[in-house]
Amino acid sequence: MSLLGMDKPVIGITMGDPAGIGAEVIVKALAETEVRRRARFVIYGLNELLAYAADLAELDVFWWRDQHERITRRFPQSVVVADYDEISWLGDTQNKCATKIGGEASLQFIRDAVTDALAGKIDAIVTGPINKQSWHLAGCKYPGHTELLKKHCRSKRVGMMFVGGPFRVILATIHEALFEVRHKFTIGRVFEPIDLANDALKKWFGVEHPKIAVAALNPHAGEIDPFGDEEKRIIKPAILMAQEAGIDVEGPFPADSLFHQALNKKWDVIVAMYHDQGLIPIKMLAFDKAVNVTVGLPIIRTSPDHGTAFDIVGRNGACADSMKAAILVACDMAEKKVVSKKLKVKK
Amino acid sequence: MSLLGMDKPVIGITMGDPAGIGAEVIVKALAETEVRRRARFVIYGLNELLAYAADLAELDVFWWRDQHERITRRFPQSVVVADYDEISWLGDTQNKCATKIGGEASLQFIRDAVTDALAGKIDAIVTGPINKQSWHLAGCKYPGHTELLKKHCRSKRVGMMFVGGPFRVILATIHEALFEVRHKFTIGRVFEPIDLANDALKKWFGVEHPKIAVAALNPHAGEIDPFGDEEKRIIKPAILMAQEAGIDVEGPFPADSLFHQALNKKWDVIVAMYHDQGLIPIKMLAFDKAVNVTVGLPIIRTSPDHGTAFDIVGRNGACADSMKAAILVACDMAEKKVVSKKLKVKK
Repeated sequence: MSLLGMDKPVIGITMGDPAGIGAEVIVKALAETEVRRRARFVIYGLNELLAYAADLAELDVFWWRDQHERITRRFPQSVVVADYDEISWLGDTQNKCATKIGGEASLQFIRDAVTDALAGKIDAIVTGPINKQSWHLAGCKYPGHTELLKKHCRSKRVGMMFVGGPFRVILATIHEALFEVRHKFTIGRVFEPIDLANDALKKWFGVEHPKIAVAALNPHAGEIDPFGDEEKRIIKPAILMAQEAGIDVEGPFPADSLFHQALNKKWDVIVAMYHDQGLIPIKMLAFDKAVNVTVGLPIIRTSPDHGTAFDIVGRNGACADSMKAAILVACDMAEKKVVSKKLKVKK
Repeated sequence: MSLLGMDKPVIGITMGDPAGIGAEVIVKALAETEVRRRARFVIYGLNELLAYAADLAELDVFWWRDQHERITRRFPQSVVVADYDEISWLGDTQNKCATKIGGEASLQFIRDAVTDALAGKIDAIVTGPINKQSWHLAGCKYPGHTELLKKHCRSKRVGMMFVGGPFRVILATIHEALFEVRHKFTIGRVFEPIDLANDALKKWFGVEHPKIAVAALNPHAGEIDPFGDEEKRIIKPAILMAQEAGIDVEGPFPADSLFHQALNKKWDVIVAMYHDQGLIPIKMLAFDKAVNVTVGLPIIRTSPDHGTAFDIVGRNGACADSMKAAILVACDMAEKKVVSKKLKVKK
């Protein structure tokens, strides 16, 4: 057992709903040495499922297993499974659907990972896909990871950022019906992602002076009169607020030309006003490699941009590209964070 | 003077507002032999401005000039200017802004071109950029070409299609403030572009059995309950109507994954629900080469996807790529149309 690599960041990966493709994509992603050499890893999940996934994928087991209570930061292996063998998944159920036990298990994985991240045992969390219905059956009221993390980390504001291809995009409004966005479209709602992205880029992405662009809501940025006044009433004031707070932010720019210009990396992040405005360009260029980053937390959290995909579980057919990308982004962020810590120490 | 090429289609190009970059981009686009060998061309505009633009661009004059009243289909040159020398532009004004005379001139160009297209003198119209304010000063109530063409061609329904990169996209709603789209979002409004695109692809693009995909309005196609019901209430019924009319159409698909899949040309056209949904992907991949095609008219009309750009006029700095693309798409369409005519004659 080598003690080399003890200075590498430790990335926690939660398996998500045991009924989903989490185990499969985690095993496949970590099987790549390109990924494994970047950090050390703790998988919060069920060893039996990981071993089963490896078997299906014809991969040798490359990890160490220990009981989840006994995990420390200083384990000597590059990958260790924080195992929950009190949960006998394969014995109890083969369900590929939402279940109470699946909800309970995935909640326990993420809660333990958050506790460990807050305690400094791990440097980042990559979350495998959970099922909202399973969480509901397990008596959890959160609609997703983000809300749970916000609560557990006592964060007041969080934002949803996507990293993929040449872009970083943060959303001002997220999972809203398009025609309902207008009820939530306030100056604060536009200011918040600008501010959160600015902080996150400095803190986790190693960007000293983030340059931020804000997309318009209306066609042609509402510059022709009857096309809407939200640019004037809401977006510009939010940008002005941010500029007065010292943030290097510009806009609003017509969305259709903005994303084209962003291809040349003119900005460090684009603030999109609604879900599809940001997700169409990201997914076009980085469909299987888009990574969701929660900003505003005191810890690093990334996740692949796919769900549990119950329909393809157990067939070894899931694509691990997004999980791999999520792990690599978490490694980048953890490294950048470590660097800034070191710099501070040097001062 | 060669009589070769008399079987090529004849493309009419209107200069648009004389104060804009129309003359410059037309001259630059037609200066390329790649473009000129595709068809014969009639430019409806001011010869003096075209000559001035050629001079600035250091291009030799490559066209013949005649009075606009004397233009026939059987002119022997590959490019002829249908000149309006009764309009003395350089003598009257050097304005690079909206003017009454600019409005009157650009209206005359397009009206004559439409008359010639309807009479069969030309096979397609490519429209240079006009200024709405100029048209307004000239007493014209239309906000743009499309409305004028609709009226002059007595078309009941027209649609705005964009061709660029790997995509064709048609819009269900166009120049609306995003939060106003909901007032116009009806089954008919979604059905119409499906039907118009289907007809246009068969008639002008040589696609015998068009395959059409419809984008959803809401994130994740509204499949998760609180994200909006327009997919169920409006889009699906419109698709069903179209399917019952024999059209090969599918959807609604989540917009973010749809455009990614469309990169592989799975569909002949995508129906986007609102302006930016269609224009973000088109402009990302074909920023300077996006072409606007008006469908639903009895004639072919394409146009570059830019405005008069008064601010850069006279500096020889305008990019002619979009005009060139608009001319080439018009050539394609005219050729496809000609082919189907010939086929009919052979029968």
